[in-house]
Amino acid sequence: MRDVAIIGAGMIPFGRRDEDSLMDMLAYASLKALDDAGLGDKSVDAVYVANMGAGILQHQTSIASSLVDRLSLLPAAADVVENGPASGASAIKNGLLAVASGYYDYVLVVGGEKMREVTGWRATDFVATMTHPQAEYPYGITLPGMAGMFTRLYMEKYGVTREHLLAVTLKNQAMGALNPYAHVEMTLDREGIFDSPHAVVNNPVAADPLHLYDLCPVSDGAAAVVLCPLELAKKHAKAPVLIAGFGQATDTHTLQERGDPTDLKAVTLAAQQAFEMAKMKPADIDVAELHDAFTILEIAESEHVGFFKKGEGGKAAAAGKTRLGGQLPINMSGGLKARGHPVGATGVAQVVDIVYQLRHELPENRQVKNAKTGFTINFGGFGNNVVSFVLKRVEP
Amino acid sequence: MRDVAIIGAGMIPFGRRDEDSLMDMLAYASLKALDDAGLGDKSVDAVYVANMGAGILQHQTSIASSLVDRLSLLPAAADVVENGPASGASAIKNGLLAVASGYYDYVLVVGGEKMREVTGWRATDFVATMTHPQAEYPYGITLPGMAGMFTRLYMEKYGVTREHLLAVTLKNQAMGALNPYAHVEMTLDREGIFDSPHAVVNNPVAADPLHLYDLCPVSDGAAAVVLCPLELAKKHAKAPVLIAGFGQATDTHTLQERGDPTDLKAVTLAAQQAFEMAKMKPADIDVAELHDAFTILEIAESEHVGFFKKGEGGKAAAAGKTRLGGQLPINMSGGLKARGHPVGATGVAQVVDIVYQLRHELPENRQVKNAKTGFTINFGGFGNNVVSFVLKRVEP
Repeated sequence: MRDVAIIGAGMIPFGRRDEDSLMDMLAYASLKALDDAGLGDKSVDAVYVANMGAGILQHQTSIASSLVDRLSLLPAAADVVENGPASGASAIKNGLLAVASGYYDYVLVVGGEKMREVTGWRATDFVATMTHPQAEYPYGITLPGMAGMFTRLYMEKYGVTREHLLAVTLKNQAMGALNPYAHVEMTLDREGIFDSPHAVVNNPVAADPLHLYDLCPVSDGAAAVVLCPLELAKKHAKAPVLIAGFGQATDTHTLQERGDPTDLKAVTLAAQQAFEMAKMKPADIDVAELHDAFTILEIAESEHVGFFKKGEGGKAAAAGKTRLGGQLPINMSGGLKARGHPVGATGVAQVVDIVYQLRHELPENRQVKNAKTGFTINFGGFGNNVVSFVLKRVEP
Repeated sequence: MRDVAIIGAGMIPFGRRDEDSLMDMLAYASLKALDDAGLGDKSVDAVYVANMGAGILQHQTSIASSLVDRLSLLPAAADVVENGPASGASAIKNGLLAVASGYYDYVLVVGGEKMREVTGWRATDFVATMTHPQAEYPYGITLPGMAGMFTRLYMEKYGVTREHLLAVTLKNQAMGALNPYAHVEMTLDREGIFDSPHAVVNNPVAADPLHLYDLCPVSDGAAAVVLCPLELAKKHAKAPVLIAGFGQATDTHTLQERGDPTDLKAVTLAAQQAFEMAKMKPADIDVAELHDAFTILEIAESEHVGFFKKGEGGKAAAAGKTRLGGQLPINMSGGLKARGHPVGATGVAQVVDIVYQLRHELPENRQVKNAKTGFTINFGGFGNNVVSFVLKRVEP
């Protein structure tokens, strides 16, 4: 297996992008990554497009074939990879293994989603298409609904409090406000959404015990990376980032079938695989992007992957250990919570953010000093298909 | 790159399967392939699901995550791969490269589609979601419409006649009638659909100059293969089939942008890549499955991949050179024309049929005697994303 590096990364500002088609967004992010890679007129051998909903939201299929033409990358091979909200990381995985195999040298991976194509309940319904078609979807359960029940169980079992969740909200919202690519640009204060009598209006219950600002927004967006063998990567301009480890694991489709529904086995396994391949352990990681579609997930994942002991993740967040300058900064991009969560784009955007961290390119108020190693969790379904990466700076 | 072999293959009868859900079909085909591979209780490391339309037709996403649970293959990694009607071959490609890389040992690839979920114009509209969203779809062009225009040009340029097309129809329909997995079980005779005055009723114009029986049906179905390194394959019961070559190439999304719209560049390129990797040439092939969604495509592809010279494919079909016992038997399964074309399943079904041929398991009336090498073309869009394989029998 050849070592594979990321030599280019790019993304477009997430948010509401009514003026852009899905194809526009995929093309913009791709061009930024190709440009960042300094490939110039050189083409790529293959393109992987991560997308969950073009069929439902845009009534389109075969978007990889369309994109490769739009980008003038013909006759490069092109496929779409779908794994719900973990489509982005799954697409990177397939690009990684294709390059690792020796068959392709240069691969573009781009993830995108235009979720604001539909509004109101249709957006929630679109996301719910990932639930079990017989055991869940017909009964009206939504992803926020599942997250609410999961949070209640987690609170009862591990003593997580709303105070802990609030710490995640405030941190990620503050970081998002500093990130030009983030969807939600406003900062929030504790007073307005928690302490004051107006909090009940400003931050209403969404799926008890989760409130509005415990949930990520519905976003449009796209992000891209360019992969090649580490050996070739050294020829390119910027510092390459090695994909040192990768893991992917599945769990039961429905939460109700899990012996302990608070146990996110696929998260634990995917992370273990990634650490094992990288020959590293959680304590070796300098910065992480976790899949905080709901604030509880950042806390639960930080425990399941081994950054904190079970029951300690919430306390760690409240104590500032996951802030910039803390023991392990998490979601310095603002996370899904503030950067936004265009489902097909998210897994790629997480890796793009870590690449920026490991290249030391971010402004001081977001850059983890001298970061050398990064970690991601991209969470498909409600933890039924999870993909993890360990990334490593390669010193020039 | 490790050599990769197919150690198991299975499919379910294509056709109208109102009683089965998409997930049922994917599961049945998978179980047949796993059983055929003799894996017993051993699980697989990863699952690739080829599917084009679950979002549009079943309002479902994340079906790979669901399938891996349904099959009790947890915690195997699982992704969906989509490349329009070439999704099946694209999924096999990704399984191939994943095993070739050394990361996974055992991979299940299953393709399926439940197209009869919708009826009438909705089925044609679903297929048309692969056309260009700005330059084609809004103007009402359909895939049969494109095929009609392509046929007219091909007839004018290369002298293909309706007699040539008829030869493909009759051959594939006759072979389909012998294939228990085929959708269309009836044989047709020349008199009824061509010569008699009733032909105009029995076989009406569908997209001039193509008639009804020049087009494949709209089918439900699923097919699966199990891959592993050739080295491990030798331990398993049946004769392994080596994936000796693979190629994939793209072309402009719209036909109108091609300098010569009769030139299927992506077909030529994908085949060249596959032959090059296999260190073989077209004359080395014993049996082929080509993508005859329309009869003209079998003829055009047989020329573009190098089995016959340009302008000779139609004559070769009419002269019986592509029949069983002929110079190069094509579509001994009945092809898309008679086996059916559940889009996500087709590319996998083609490979399954070649595996049966190379294992010498078919009844005498379909088996190419002593077949040692096989070839496939899976045609995405209207030739905008094409995948090809060269397969080789490994003597025990």
